Amino acid sequence: MDILTIVAAVSIFTAGITIAVGSIGPALGEGRAVASALEALAQQPDASSSITRTLFVGLAMIESVAIYCFVTSMILIFANPFWTMALSKAGGH
Amino acid sequence: MDILTIVAAVSIFTAGITIAVGSIGPALGEGRAVASALEALAQQPDASSSITRTLFVGLAMIESVAIYCFVTSMILIFANPFWTMALSKAGGH
Amino acid sequence: MDILTIVAAVSIFTAGITIAVGSIGPALGEGRAVASALEALAQQPDASSSITRTLFVGLAMIESVAIYCFVTSMILIFANPFWTMALSKAGGH
Amino acid sequence: MDILTIVAAVSIFTAGITIAVGSIGPALGEGRAVASALEALAQQPDASSSITRTLFVGLAMIESVAIYCFVTSMILIFANPFWTMALSKAGGH
Amino acid sequence: MDILTIVAAVSIFTAGITIAVGSIGPALGEGRAVASALEALAQQPDASSSITRTLFVGLAMIESVAIYCFVTSMILIFANPFWTMALSKAGGH
Amino acid sequence: MDILTIVAAVSIFTAGITIAVGSIGPALGEGRAVASALEALAQQPDASSSITRTLFVGLAMIESVAIYCFVTSMILIFANPFWTMALSKAGGH
Amino acid sequence: MDILTIVAAVSIFTAGITIAVGSIGPALGEGRAVASALEALAQQPDASSSITRTLFVGLAMIESVAIYCFVTSMILIFANPFWTMALSKAGGH
Amino acid sequence: MDILTIVAAVSIFTAGITIAVGSIGPALGEGRAVASALEALAQQPDASSSITRTLFVGLAMIESVAIYCFVTSMILIFANPFWTMALSKAGGH
Amino acid sequence: MDILTIVAAVSIFTAGITIAVGSIGPALGEGRAVASALEALAQQPDASSSITRTLFVGLAMIESVAIYCFVTSMILIFANPFWTMALSKAGGH
Amino acid sequence: MDILTIVAAVSIFTAGITIAVGSIGPALGEGRAVASALEALAQQPDASSSITRTLFVGLAMIESVAIYCFVTSMILIFANPFWTMALSKAGGH
Amino acid sequence: MDILTIVAAVSIFTAGITIAVGSIGPALGEGRAVASALEALAQQPDASSSITRTLFVGLAMIESVAIYCFVTSMILIFANPFWTMALSKAGGH
Amino acid sequence: MDILTIVAAVSIFTAGITIAVGSIGPALGEGRAVASALEALAQQPDASSSITRTLFVGLAMIESVAIYCFVTSMILIFANPFWTMALSKAGGH
Amino acid sequence: MDILTIVAAVSIFTAGITIAVGSIGPALGEGRAVASALEALAQQPDASSSITRTLFVGLAMIESVAIYCFVTSMILIFANPFWTMALSKAGGH
Amino acid sequence: MDILTIVAAVSIFTAGITIAVGSIGPALGEGRAVASALEALAQQPDASSSITRTLFVGLAMIESVAIYCFVTSMILIFANPFWTMALSKAGGH
Repeated sequence: MDILTIVAAVSIFTAGITIAVGSIGPALGEGRAVASALEALAQQPDASSSITRTLFVGLAMIESVAIYCFVTSMILIFANPFWTMALSKAGGH
Repeated sequence: MDILTIVAAVSIFTAGITIAVGSIGPALGEGRAVASALEALAQQPDASSSITRTLFVGLAMIESVAIYCFVTSMILIFANPFWTMALSKAGGH
Repeated sequence: MDILTIVAAVSIFTAGITIAVGSIGPALGEGRAVASALEALAQQPDASSSITRTLFVGLAMIESVAIYCFVTSMILIFANPFWTMALSKAGGH
Repeated sequence: MDILTIVAAVSIFTAGITIAVGSIGPALGEGRAVASALEALAQQPDASSSITRTLFVGLAMIESVAIYCFVTSMILIFANPFWTMALSKAGGH
Repeated sequence: MDILTIVAAVSIFTAGITIAVGSIGPALGEGRAVASALEALAQQPDASSSITRTLFVGLAMIESVAIYCFVTSMILIFANPFWTMALSKAGGH
Repeated sequence: MDILTIVAAVSIFTAGITIAVGSIGPALGEGRAVASALEALAQQPDASSSITRTLFVGLAMIESVAIYCFVTSMILIFANPFWTMALSKAGGH
Repeated sequence: MDILTIVAAVSIFTAGITIAVGSIGPALGEGRAVASALEALAQQPDASSSITRTLFVGLAMIESVAIYCFVTSMILIFANPFWTMALSKAGGH
Repeated sequence: MDILTIVAAVSIFTAGITIAVGSIGPALGEGRAVASALEALAQQPDASSSITRTLFVGLAMIESVAIYCFVTSMILIFANPFWTMALSKAGGH
Repeated sequence: MDILTIVAAVSIFTAGITIAVGSIGPALGEGRAVASALEALAQQPDASSSITRTLFVGLAMIESVAIYCFVTSMILIFANPFWTMALSKAGGH
Repeated sequence: MDILTIVAAVSIFTAGITIAVGSIGPALGEGRAVASALEALAQQPDASSSITRTLFVGLAMIESVAIYCFVTSMILIFANPFWTMALSKAGGH
Repeated sequence: MDILTIVAAVSIFTAGITIAVGSIGPALGEGRAVASALEALAQQPDASSSITRTLFVGLAMIESVAIYCFVTSMILIFANPFWTMALSKAGGH
Repeated sequence: MDILTIVAAVSIFTAGITIAVGSIGPALGEGRAVASALEALAQQPDASSSITRTLFVGLAMIESVAIYCFVTSMILIFANPFWTMALSKAGGH
Repeated sequence: MDILTIVAAVSIFTAGITIAVGSIGPALGEGRAVASALEALAQQPDASSSITRTLFVGLAMIESVAIYCFVTSMILIFANPFWTMALSKAGGH
Repeated sequence: MDILTIVAAVSIFTAGITIAVGSIGPALGEGRAVASALEALAQQPDASSSITRTLFVGLAMIESVAIYCFVTSMILIFANPFWTMALSKAGGH
């Protein structure tokens, strides 16, 4: 198996696994945060604006972790420096 | 095994695993959020509109993580740059 | 093993695993949501319509994740682009 | 090992695993939903009809996930397009 | 190893694993449902008939998932289309 | 390794694993059901007959899942159609 | 490795694993049932006879699952039909 | 590797694993039962004799599962029918 | 690798794993029993003698499971019948 | 496989796994922290500023752990010293 | 690889794993026992002497399980009968 | 594969895994600590300064464990003594 | 691979794993004990001296388990009898 | 692969894994201890000094376990006796 085959196979596999595994933590964390926000709203409807604001900041922080994974995954598919190098090397043969 | 075979096999396998593993977190997280929303509704029926709005924002955030996985999975099946390259290379033989 | 054999074997295996693993999260999440809905109904029978409506929206969101897996699984069995390509290539021999 | 052997072996194995793994989530989810329904009935016997109706809708949603797995499993055993193709190819030898 | 050996071995192994793994979820789910029914009976003996009826519907739904696994397992042992084909092919040699 | 050896080895291994893994769920589920029955008895001794009857129905349902596994296990040891076929084929040599 | 060696090795390994894995569920289930019985006794000493009777029926049901495993294990060691066949075949050489 | 070596190695390994894995369930189950007995004693010192009697019956049932594993383990070391056969066959060479 | 090497390697490995894995259950079970005894003492100092007596009987039962593992481990190191046989056979060469 | 291929493959795989696995802990930790903040806000709306400040410091600390993983991942893709060395060595051939 | 190498490698690996795995259970069990003792002391300072005495007996029992693992580990390193035999056999060559 | 390739591959893989696995514990631990701090703030706003101080000391201790992992990871990438040695040895060829 | 290489590799790997795995139990156990001590202090500040004394004895017992692992790890690195023997044997060649 | 390569690869891998795995327990344990300290402070602000002192002693004990892992990891990278020996042996060639 030459370098093109291996880099392509590893990139595809890693791109999928990265976003798949990387979605477990953020999804569960956001689920927990939203659940608490809803319980807090039911318990203290008057603090609604401050609860919503804190929730959004928190969701943004947690979503950022999922974004890291998605960005890494997209880099591996569409802007993979190892693939570029392998292509140029294979082309130069 | 040539590059076409390997890229096809890895793409199929990864596409399936990505959405399969990537569905666990969002499904559980959404289940938790909906469960809290229902408990909150039962506890404070008056805050119904604010609870529903917060729930929908939260579900959208969590669903977005599942969408990342689904998009990655579809890219691997229908718009896979490695596959395009492998096809063009195999065709050029 | 030629490309037809490998693509067929990987597609069958992945199709099954995708829906099998992808059913765990949604089933548990829906179970939790339904359980909370029933507890909420018992606690606040008057909010029945708002609870039911929220439950159905939530179930739809969670089911959508299972649908992503089922769709991916069916695509792999009945509309697999890699298989089409492999067949056409094998036929052209 | 020729394509017939491999496709048969993978189909059998995947068919079994799909329904086996795919039964864990729905069974646990339904168990939880039924358990909550019974607790709700004990707590609020007057809401019996609304609880039963919500339970049945929920069970149908959860069972649908198990049905996806069973259908996929049966397709792999009795209507497997890869197997049909492999048979026709083997017959044409 | 010829196709007969492989199909036989895979069928035996899958038949056992299918019902073994497929029994975990339903057994736990039914245990939970029965446990809740008993607690509900102790809490509200007057609702006995409605609790029992709901329990039986729930157990039937959960048992159906175990039945799917058992049916798949029996199909693999006694009505396996791949095995029939392999036998007829081996006999025709 | 000929077909007799492989079928024998796989049958022995699967028979043991089937009943071993298949005993985990039912045993835990029955333990939970019995535990709830005892708590229910302590809480509501007057409902003793209705609790006992519901418990026995529940235990029968759960035990049936274990029986499926045991039956499959015994079929694999004493009435294995693949083994019969392999023996007749080996004898006909 | 001839059939005698493989059948012996697989039988020994499976016999041990069957009873080892098969002891986890029943032991935990019985522990839970006994624990509930003791709590029930402390809470309602007057229901002692009905609690003890229910406990013994429950323990018998759970123990039966362990017995299935033990019986399968002993069959594999002392009354293994595959081993008998392998011995007779090896003797007939 | 001849049959003596393989049977000896598998027997040693299985004997150890059987009692090692088989000790987890009973030890945890007995720990739970004893813990409940102590809590019950603290809550209802007057029911001491009935609690102790029930505890001993329960511990005997749980210990019996551990004994099954220990007996199987000792049989594999000191009274292994496969080993006896292998020795007699090796001696007859 | 001759029989001496394999039996020695397997015996060493199994002896260690047996007592290592076999220590998890008893240690956790005893920890739980001791913890309950201390809570019971704090709750009912007057029942001290009956609590202590029950605790010691329980600890003895749980420790017996650990002893089974230790004895098996020591038998495998110092009184291994397979090793004795292998040595005598190797010596007789 | 030469050094270029191996270093590229290992770098791609590790970069993906690092951020994927490294996202689980921070996402769950942040989810928990945000959830507690929302509960605290509902319980003590007056301490809103001090709660928000503490939450942000905590989120920053937890996010820093995710950043470590993301930085390591990016270093492995875009500033990998081993890759630089391998390229220069391959170029110098 | 001769017997000396294999026995040395297996002994080193097993000695480490034995004490490493064998430390998990006792450490957690002792942690639980100490935690309960501290809670009991806070709840009933007057029973301090009886709590301390029971704690020490319990810790001794749990520590004994860890000691079994440590002793087995040290025997494997410093008094390994298999190693002695292998050395004498290697020396006698 | 020469030493350069292997050391590079192992260093890259280990560097990623070290910080990835090493981030799980600290992130969860810090999440728990921050959560408790927020609950404590809500419960006792007056002790705000002492809570904040204790939180920061605790976070510093926990972060130090993550720092150990990050430092080890960076050493493996940028100051790896084994790599230096391998390079100098490869250069001296 | 000669004995020196294998013994060195196994010793390094085992030394690391031993202390790594062996740190999980004691760290969690000590964390639990310290947590209970702090709760006990908050609940009963007057029993401070007796709580502190019991905590230190308990921590010493738990730490001793970690010390066993650390000692084994250091013996494997710096006083490994198998390594000494292998070195002397390699030197005597 | 010569001894230098193997010892280097194993040392790098083990050094990373040791601190990575070894950070899970201490980080979780410290998180728990800090969390309890904060709850204790909120519940009993007057015992602040005694709580802080006990917390620091506890954190020191838990951190010591992480330090053991870090020290072992650093020894494996910078003061590895096996590596020194391998280098001197390779140099003496």
